[in-house]
Amino acid sequence: MTDEQKKQYWLGFDLGGTKMLAQVFDRQFKPIGKARKKTKASLDADAGLNRVADTIRDALEDAKITAPELLGIGIGCPGPVDMDRGVVLDPPNLGWKNAKVRSMLEGEFSTRVAVLNDVDAGVFGEYRFGAGTGARTVVGVFPGTGIGGGCVYDGVILRGTVHSCMEIGHVQVDPKGPLCGCGRRGCLEAVASRLAIAANAAKAAYRGEAPKLLEIAGTDIADIRSGALAASVAGGDRVVKELVTEAARMIGIAVAGVVHLLAPDVIIIGGGLAESMPEIMVDVVAAEAKKRVMPAFKETFKVVAAKLGDDAGSLGAAAWAEKQFEPEPSMPRE
Amino acid sequence: MTDEQKKQYWLGFDLGGTKMLAQVFDRQFKPIGKARKKTKASLDADAGLNRVADTIRDALEDAKITAPELLGIGIGCPGPVDMDRGVVLDPPNLGWKNAKVRSMLEGEFSTRVAVLNDVDAGVFGEYRFGAGTGARTVVGVFPGTGIGGGCVYDGVILRGTVHSCMEIGHVQVDPKGPLCGCGRRGCLEAVASRLAIAANAAKAAYRGEAPKLLEIAGTDIADIRSGALAASVAGGDRVVKELVTEAARMIGIAVAGVVHLLAPDVIIIGGGLAESMPEIMVDVVAAEAKKRVMPAFKETFKVVAAKLGDDAGSLGAAAWAEKQFEPEPSMPRE
Repeated sequence: MTDEQKKQYWLGFDLGGTKMLAQVFDRQFKPIGKARKKTKASLDADAGLNRVADTIRDALEDAKITAPELLGIGIGCPGPVDMDRGVVLDPPNLGWKNAKVRSMLEGEFSTRVAVLNDVDAGVFGEYRFGAGTGARTVVGVFPGTGIGGGCVYDGVILRGTVHSCMEIGHVQVDPKGPLCGCGRRGCLEAVASRLAIAANAAKAAYRGEAPKLLEIAGTDIADIRSGALAASVAGGDRVVKELVTEAARMIGIAVAGVVHLLAPDVIIIGGGLAESMPEIMVDVVAAEAKKRVMPAFKETFKVVAAKLGDDAGSLGAAAWAEKQFEPEPSMPRE
Repeated sequence: MTDEQKKQYWLGFDLGGTKMLAQVFDRQFKPIGKARKKTKASLDADAGLNRVADTIRDALEDAKITAPELLGIGIGCPGPVDMDRGVVLDPPNLGWKNAKVRSMLEGEFSTRVAVLNDVDAGVFGEYRFGAGTGARTVVGVFPGTGIGGGCVYDGVILRGTVHSCMEIGHVQVDPKGPLCGCGRRGCLEAVASRLAIAANAAKAAYRGEAPKLLEIAGTDIADIRSGALAASVAGGDRVVKELVTEAARMIGIAVAGVVHLLAPDVIIIGGGLAESMPEIMVDVVAAEAKKRVMPAFKETFKVVAAKLGDDAGSLGAAAWAEKQFEPEPSMPRE
């Protein structure tokens, strides 16, 4: 067997702010091994990248393959990311700065490496294997600590001038709204992220208006995760239900703006809130967006829940590596 | 000379709501002949298309060439347009409905025909030959009766699911704003189109607050065109200057939203208002957009005036036909 024939596997890596996941896939993107570690946001770029390499080695071992058998690695990283140079620029939730992810991993594993934004990786994963298959234009919206966005158009990740685009979390929905982490006011993520909902829910719990939430999670917003919010709503905390619904309405307003500009077929809502409360985070977003678009667009799009959960990022990163390094197979020669 | 060798010219057509322009270009897009007619919006699709064909014949005659010498025709039409089928669907300002533009013109001139949205054609023209050359992502904004938008990304016109996209005129900038032609409230074009400015300026003229405008154009908004507004501002009507400035600010707000979603290199402002008052319609838009984007985007884009004037549409339509029918020349064979 030649070296080229040995190469049969893709490695997809999802580097999150709190955890990292490496998965090995065969050519049909069936998972054959994986490894997880905590990210340790306090590490610098060198130590962080060594930890990434360790996780990759663990995944290779779990899959019982070696690095020379890899067709390539795709790695989704917290943005902003320079896809051309394979560099993570200055992620707000990670101690790294100008981390040369591609050249380090290429050196370490002697294979081709594609670096992309983590949200883009998740949207590309959903486009290839999940809720967005077959669409021309897929927009993904992922409410979490912030609100990430990404767009796949005609099979490629849409990119901005200097880094990735679709910063839907920073579309301004209320000029007089609360301060955002970016320094402006009333950005979508300042009013509708899980963190924004959690902060308002904590106030309600503190005031005694959300007894179920108080019982489950207390008033520390670090403990008020998606599951706690969902349990609070299910347990009858009407104020919390209204907070989540209002957040979904604000996301719907921003989605309506995206529809006017990009006319996507499919808008995918992902993340823990959408998974635990799709009847609010998907249905209310859809209803509000439909209400707010001009008549010509009302029947042109659907809003759906993400399908791949935590696998979207690593699957999408691996599939993006394939897209970069193995373009459409040429027609068989006669 | 074979039939193929004879084919040396592109025809670009700009079908506007009030006038139509056909231009013949050589392979380097140097204009070598043209013809104009009024559109006569009251005509039905058949009569309208006959008028288009007449205008094309006049342009061919002016260029001293015949239809068999055409490489192809590109025609920009009022949207919505189905680019795949070459059909104009249901333009608000034209009596046509489901007009089969491509098949009719292909039959008439025995050449290849590309049909696209008129604003897209203008933006593509500016991308290829005007204010957007060399950019990855160009967004065009054309305030007129409404506010048209278009986007060229990596050399292609960005398209929506069912027709063209970038309906920036229907991005909502003020939920409590005035009624829009689309039936909603506070769309950008309801507050910042030339027509919206003219309506407010007419009120000011009627109230005696814009004496110069009253003298030049009276209070009929059909007479308050870009030139009249510019003359009014130049003549000292401070209220009119404030109205135009406020419209530019609203456009800047919408542009900031576009920057967060698409991160374009270049935003081009075109149309009569931008040509006659660039110090307001370009500079104020730029200042407002820079003020409203998140810090990471402040230095990533520029706002510029369109360069090609009335030629943008026909040039862009012809160049789009080339893009469709003559893909990159293949490498020379050894």
